Amino acid sequence: MLEICRTPELAVEATLQPVRRLGVDAAILFSDIVVPLQAMGVALEIRPGVGPVIEHPIRSDADVEGLLPLVPEEGVPYVLEAVRALASELEVPLIGFAGAPFTLASYLVEGGPSKNHSRTKALMYSEPQAWRRLMRRLADAVLAYLRAQVEAGAGAVQLFDSWVGELSADDYSTYVLPEVERILGGLADLGVPRIHFGVGSGELLGLMAQAGADVVGVDWRVPIDEGRKRVGDGYAVQGNLDPAACLAPWDVLEAKALDVLERGGGHAHVFNLGHGVLPATDPGSLERLVDLVHDWSPSRGGLGWTAEQSRGGLGRTAEQI
Amino acid sequence: MLEICRTPELAVEATLQPVRRLGVDAAILFSDIVVPLQAMGVALEIRPGVGPVIEHPIRSDADVEGLLPLVPEEGVPYVLEAVRALASELEVPLIGFAGAPFTLASYLVEGGPSKNHSRTKALMYSEPQAWRRLMRRLADAVLAYLRAQVEAGAGAVQLFDSWVGELSADDYSTYVLPEVERILGGLADLGVPRIHFGVGSGELLGLMAQAGADVVGVDWRVPIDEGRKRVGDGYAVQGNLDPAACLAPWDVLEAKALDVLERGGGHAHVFNLGHGVLPATDPGSLERLVDLVHDWSPSRGGLGWTAEQSRGGLGRTAEQI
Repeated sequence: MLEICRTPELAVEATLQPVRRLGVDAAILFSDIVVPLQAMGVALEIRPGVGPVIEHPIRSDADVEGLLPLVPEEGVPYVLEAVRALASELEVPLIGFAGAPFTLASYLVEGGPSKNHSRTKALMYSEPQAWRRLMRRLADAVLAYLRAQVEAGAGAVQLFDSWVGELSADDYSTYVLPEVERILGGLADLGVPRIHFGVGSGELLGLMAQAGADVVGVDWRVPIDEGRKRVGDGYAVQGNLDPAACLAPWDVLEAKALDVLERGGGHAHVFNLGHGVLPATDPGSLERLVDLVHDWSPSRGGLGWTAEQSRGGLGRTAEQI
Repeated sequence: MLEICRTPELAVEATLQPVRRLGVDAAILFSDIVVPLQAMGVALEIRPGVGPVIEHPIRSDADVEGLLPLVPEEGVPYVLEAVRALASELEVPLIGFAGAPFTLASYLVEGGPSKNHSRTKALMYSEPQAWRRLMRRLADAVLAYLRAQVEAGAGAVQLFDSWVGELSADDYSTYVLPEVERILGGLADLGVPRIHFGVGSGELLGLMAQAGADVVGVDWRVPIDEGRKRVGDGYAVQGNLDPAACLAPWDVLEAKALDVLERGGGHAHVFNLGHGVLPATDPGSLERLVDLVHDWSPSRGGLGWTAEQSRGGLGRTAEQI
């Protein structure tokens, strides 16, 4: 996985495959959220069946001090090279990608994936200064990383907060939101749509929008019309077919996809899955799904941005399906 | 773990410890949700750091046929022996305990814990008849199991659906709710409070109440006043301090506990954690927490049922703190 992320030709190929095969309306940079951490001096590996494992977890102020600032052109030149190649090759927009500070912090503090994120929360509650310093460093890095991706040609960005759904809204507001605001606010001048997504984040959708998103991703637990209510006016929503629905027979999958489209209402809605594609998924089902979404929308462009937008470079909005 | 569950003296001791040490107002039967599965002929073990592992996962109609009906006095006599001993020894009510059919089905189909429950959902969508047969057998067993616990002296029951938060409300209604209704409805004549809890079930709270609960458990993601709104009138709520808050310094823990108490409003609220106690928790923090809850409530009885109720045997309500 990390080798693909660090080898521009491979990352380009992995990013292009779903566009070629499925005909989706945008590409998302193939990467892993831990890629920038390596460039910040964190020794880690991705273990099959486990996920990222951090050699020396960060559990004190002194550990935080050891995190290097991220200078994207020096630390992750291969990512920017892949983005540049993709931007020139793709006929649809490229969505840049980064993990959000809470999720990155959780990996760093826990030392790997965690069921309950208890060490992370314990640090947050017990050493709020160390926590804030850690979040600030991570947010600085994420902001620099996403800015560099846009400058290299990404036409939108997605900030992906895998684990943020573990937090109550109060804790999110106190311990996470300020740094996310700094990242999303720090991207505003670039004029690209900012997508903000978290798994199991039904109670946080309003805050995640207010943090400075243009598009809020909704996982499959919250019906997307209800998600739109929680997000509030002035934002687009993205989602939210249960990835497991793609394992179902076509008639079940079709009914579920149509339900999402209808709840999405045909405006300010980016149709996609409510989380990642499951490994057992038949690509043939995804092809039919993409066709269904394209056919459903009277104005075409169901899975992301329209072709017209994709030629527009910076300054696109997310106001269309 | 399974040895403790199957040895009445050990299960009794494990159940009594928190009551003795912390002075909580109710005891919950120490057990594991897979205990009745063993008695249904399922070969399984609990692996440290992993969880329950099923030797032959259930993935077809034929596999479902192999599940034996549960006759509690024959299959789990040790559980009923523990319940009888506890009922005579305890001065507070004993809450009986069972895993709900969806969570049990997920363990059986996946073969163990799962990140995305994709095989379970695939079976649900692709072979709805096998799914329904599986759920029916599990619900029959759970109903018999909980009835037997009440008949042996449990003064309330908790139906625990650990993984149900993975489902959308539509899928819950279609594939799960009818069997939960049958369980909770089948307990109605016993007149004991029926507590229904699921992790990450914020979008399902109304349905979980309507399934026939008296008390709906709310995890820490949904503020308990908001949880009460979703549950609707006529139910009590239970919860919902983040278990990780018990790892915090006392001032942080205290503020969070008081917030839960205030949002609970002092009526029809069973104060507890929003999920299980984390292993790293200092028992001293739990002692202070119990004292705080007891002191906060003007009428005493903060962590479960009042002493008066505990003497009442069957027919208690959950209308008090």
